[in-house]
Amino acid sequence: ISGEYGDIAVKVAHLFFFNQAQSIEVFVFGAGAIGGCLLDQIRDQKEELLTQKIDIKVVAIATVSSMMMDEQGLDLTNWRSDLEASTTETNLQGVLDFVQAAKPLNPIFVDCTASDDLPNQYLDIFKAGMHIATPNKRANSLSMDFYKSLRTVANTQHRRFLYETNVGAGLPIIDTLQNLFKSGDSLTGFYGIMSGSLSYIFGRLDEGASFSQAVLEAREKKFTEPDPRDDLGGMDVARKALIIAREAGYELEIEDVIINRVFPEDFDDTGSVDAFIQNLPKLDSYFAEKMAALKKENKVLRMAGFIEDGKCSVGMLEVGPEHPLYPIKDCENAFVFHTARYNPIPLTIRGYGAGAAVTAAGVFGDILRTVSWNLEA
Amino acid sequence: ISGEYGDIAVKVAHLFFFNQAQSIEVFVFGAGAIGGCLLDQIRDQKEELLTQKIDIKVVAIATVSSMMMDEQGLDLTNWRSDLEASTTETNLQGVLDFVQAAKPLNPIFVDCTASDDLPNQYLDIFKAGMHIATPNKRANSLSMDFYKSLRTVANTQHRRFLYETNVGAGLPIIDTLQNLFKSGDSLTGFYGIMSGSLSYIFGRLDEGASFSQAVLEAREKKFTEPDPRDDLGGMDVARKALIIAREAGYELEIEDVIINRVFPEDFDDTGSVDAFIQNLPKLDSYFAEKMAALKKENKVLRMAGFIEDGKCSVGMLEVGPEHPLYPIKDCENAFVFHTARYNPIPLTIRGYGAGAAVTAAGVFGDILRTVSWNLEA
Repeated sequence: ISGEYGDIAVKVAHLFFFNQAQSIEVFVFGAGAIGGCLLDQIRDQKEELLTQKIDIKVVAIATVSSMMMDEQGLDLTNWRSDLEASTTETNLQGVLDFVQAAKPLNPIFVDCTASDDLPNQYLDIFKAGMHIATPNKRANSLSMDFYKSLRTVANTQHRRFLYETNVGAGLPIIDTLQNLFKSGDSLTGFYGIMSGSLSYIFGRLDEGASFSQAVLEAREKKFTEPDPRDDLGGMDVARKALIIAREAGYELEIEDVIINRVFPEDFDDTGSVDAFIQNLPKLDSYFAEKMAALKKENKVLRMAGFIEDGKCSVGMLEVGPEHPLYPIKDCENAFVFHTARYNPIPLTIRGYGAGAAVTAAGVFGDILRTVSWNLEA
Repeated sequence: ISGEYGDIAVKVAHLFFFNQAQSIEVFVFGAGAIGGCLLDQIRDQKEELLTQKIDIKVVAIATVSSMMMDEQGLDLTNWRSDLEASTTETNLQGVLDFVQAAKPLNPIFVDCTASDDLPNQYLDIFKAGMHIATPNKRANSLSMDFYKSLRTVANTQHRRFLYETNVGAGLPIIDTLQNLFKSGDSLTGFYGIMSGSLSYIFGRLDEGASFSQAVLEAREKKFTEPDPRDDLGGMDVARKALIIAREAGYELEIEDVIINRVFPEDFDDTGSVDAFIQNLPKLDSYFAEKMAALKKENKVLRMAGFIEDGKCSVGMLEVGPEHPLYPIKDCENAFVFHTARYNPIPLTIRGYGAGAAVTAAGVFGDILRTVSWNLEA
């Protein structure tokens, strides 16, 4: 045993000798709503996890403006003000150099940014020896080539790529799918309400609200983006459906996801946000007629992502009381998986699919998945 | 680096040098419906998992009558006939001695038996250096003292105790709860339909079946035990509710679970199975009246396990259409978790909660949770 393996072996022996906890060294990029909540959760749970022999240390916190790093683990008591006071410029390469030099046992890079650029660095992050956990959907919705590279490099580096919160926030979707498929199950159909705002809007329609009223309410409550077309356009749902389809083995690009337009053909949805908002009432009679017809069949309208007959789509579904999406409203999300084994009754997971606390908890869960005792017994 | 750490370090270096897959050495006790299905799934998925750098080897298969073991991994092509032909007597101590001598990197003991005795050996199995995965509820429903010992010893040995399939078969219940609580969430309420037979029986009541008809149908379809009182008595549900309560931090014994009797007080449920079956129609008017009254309120009757106000119970619940248990019937299971964060809308997971294929897949998932690359980077 010599060279770099020797270093690791010494650490293993040391851990064992002192019967220490398994360490996780966390590097958090992005300290906004989700990242901040995650840091608070880690701070509050650190002691409890130590009793379970898990020693979770936050080694670095970085934002666009500054970063702080401490090999021994940062004191998180006042991390917000400490970070504000830090004059160190954020430097990803510096972090990677540190990891390659210090060789922490179990370093994990947590991308809590909404950056479109950071995912381009994931391959280098794996190569530096870090796991990656992220709620950021970007990496998994880029090209299929990049998608495969991420997995090849992670596997070759023996690092884990964890993204449970890419869909459904803290709901256990990705891990569940991976376990199903690894054991030989296969997806035969999928239906999901994967947007809180669309869950709310279409749920309000069953309750008798007009379409414009439902959209305006959702906007006022800040469930939608400032421009509700960002929600109603279905692109966010399309990305999530793509990620689920790829998980199931479909080799699809985002362009392959069929987005069925919510608005009738003759409705002009272009122009400024204000113009769009002002035009909304023109849609009311269209949706009112639709809802009246559906009511006679005891059905409701749901905007969903779905996978049927090998095709991945986004659009409105008409569902009756026997369908698991029927009761989904009030921002609730739901994921309905039909598989070779979950047949004829599907596997359904429902609950909040957004929110800083549940999303941070999902990322926390991903971080803890890297714990292992394998070699210390 | 010397002695036993040296051995491990050599293996780590070797793995790294050849960029080999992470190995999992599986020791399966019990090759009935679930164990057999698991072995078939492992056989069928072995190649696919190798492409993901996971090398899963079944080192031993044991039943009450015989066992077979091969350090290099058994050829599973004809494992059933090979096992039948084996003249080696099953010997747990022999397996443990082998593990302690050969020191496989990642050995996992899989208890697919229904044995009441084998769980008493779990502490020794951990001490021999093995993880344990099991669908067998026994260990987790014994005394709280034993429950804690299992976890203390597993943690001290740096081994994992995995029992996702103790409740809900392949549905992701235990892992989800553990992730929630480790990140600081807390359970405020739970409602679960955790028995396929009771799901079926009470679902048939909404559809207009009489109670005796519903029970007899469920028995004919082999959804219930030969003696339906084993299902209707609620003890199996009580054990599952106990396991969920303990997961949430409740220090309860099985005797603390309140079982509310399904039958009216004046009904005599003693005597032989035949006598009980013959008496069943006497319950029909009782349930018919109940259902008629509930129908007026648009409610249904569900037999569930539930945790409310710090108490863990089993019994009938009357639920309306807004309740996640309302649509659950036809053997479907459902688990509804109210937590500090999943509030007011709970986290709900529903689907088949029994069956060899989905249960085996859940055990398979547990086995794969032991994979880790931590020290080879």
